[in-house]
Amino acid sequence: MIETIKVSTSSHSEMVDITSQITECIGKRELKDGIVVVQSMHTTAGITVNENADPDVKTDMLRRFDEVYPWEHRKDLHAEGNTASHMKTSTVGHSQTLIVEDGSLVLGTWQGVYFCEFDGPRTRKVVVKMIEG
Amino acid sequence: MIETIKVSTSSHSEMVDITSQITECIGKRELKDGIVVVQSMHTTAGITVNENADPDVKTDMLRRFDEVYPWEHRKDLHAEGNTASHMKTSTVGHSQTLIVEDGSLVLGTWQGVYFCEFDGPRTRKVVVKMIEG
Amino acid sequence: MIETIKVSTSSHSEMVDITSQITECIGKRELKDGIVVVQSMHTTAGITVNENADPDVKTDMLRRFDEVYPWEHRKDLHAEGNTASHMKTSTVGHSQTLIVEDGSLVLGTWQGVYFCEFDGPRTRKVVVKMIEG
Repeated sequence: MIETIKVSTSSHSEMVDITSQITECIGKRELKDGIVVVQSMHTTAGITVNENADPDVKTDMLRRFDEVYPWEHRKDLHAEGNTASHMKTSTVGHSQTLIVEDGSLVLGTWQGVYFCEFDGPRTRKVVVKMIEG
Repeated sequence: MIETIKVSTSSHSEMVDITSQITECIGKRELKDGIVVVQSMHTTAGITVNENADPDVKTDMLRRFDEVYPWEHRKDLHAEGNTASHMKTSTVGHSQTLIVEDGSLVLGTWQGVYFCEFDGPRTRKVVVKMIEG
Repeated sequence: MIETIKVSTSSHSEMVDITSQITECIGKRELKDGIVVVQSMHTTAGITVNENADPDVKTDMLRRFDEVYPWEHRKDLHAEGNTASHMKTSTVGHSQTLIVEDGSLVLGTWQGVYFCEFDGPRTRKVVVKMIEG
């Protein structure tokens, strides 16, 4: 069971909450118990699970990632100039695996699933694979 | 098949080896072959697989993560002041997927599964989902 | 269904594309639909999914990881002196989960699966677990 989610980002760096879209996929396919693999189909955008309450966390995280992996770096060879986006993607991960129980995602109170745009704005594709078990 | 592990941490930053608790879950549910998703239910604590021999590795890792993501940062907006914990959690990951063969975790000689406390001490919850296959 | 891939690295830090070896495992076991967990059996080498086109991306990434996690650090306690390798492994992850549809890996145009050597050159072992579903 595979579903696809389209994410349209509006900034260069952005964390987009896609928890409800994943929940919709689970409902549509009537997955009761199992796991879900959520994969960004890109090398400059990843997936992470983090705080869904205070939006300042996202702002802080994106700024701090930018400090650790600055956009401009005089030693970078990659002609596209987006090495930092590739670093951030491998750091958070291109995908995350989630647990489903009784038809619902198993998430902590403050956990949301985020598509992490690191080289936008762009139209992006996320694949959701559901496994029963 | 879902089990829950409770982890009580005693420091602000701490890596707790939970390999044996995961092995117990596998034994209890008699999972012979498959995979296990081990998920921290928190946004300031993650899961990683790393060295189980020299405890200095944990000390070094926690100190270095603290250098890359310092606790205090004058630009942080998040009122709780724990943005660094959120960064570390997304860096190591909120969950890890493990392989089970013949009733045992498939791990390298030096690999252990660690609960990573990044904003303790606290009582934490880890969910272990087992999939046969 | 478990297969093993041997990777011989030739540098201290190196990203080795193992996508075709994983595809071979899928073909050999005739996995049509499901997921694949690809795990490094080591604590100083990980797995990541990133750009498969411009080799400069790998050069940039390895150099930038080395800047964030420098090899030499006067505060490191670990006697082997390879704390940086452990940091990098937990950052990219010791394993990645991939999706299989109609007998093929579901990857974006620019996505390849990489074994990340962070303390080579060595002969390394990667385990590939396939789950139908």
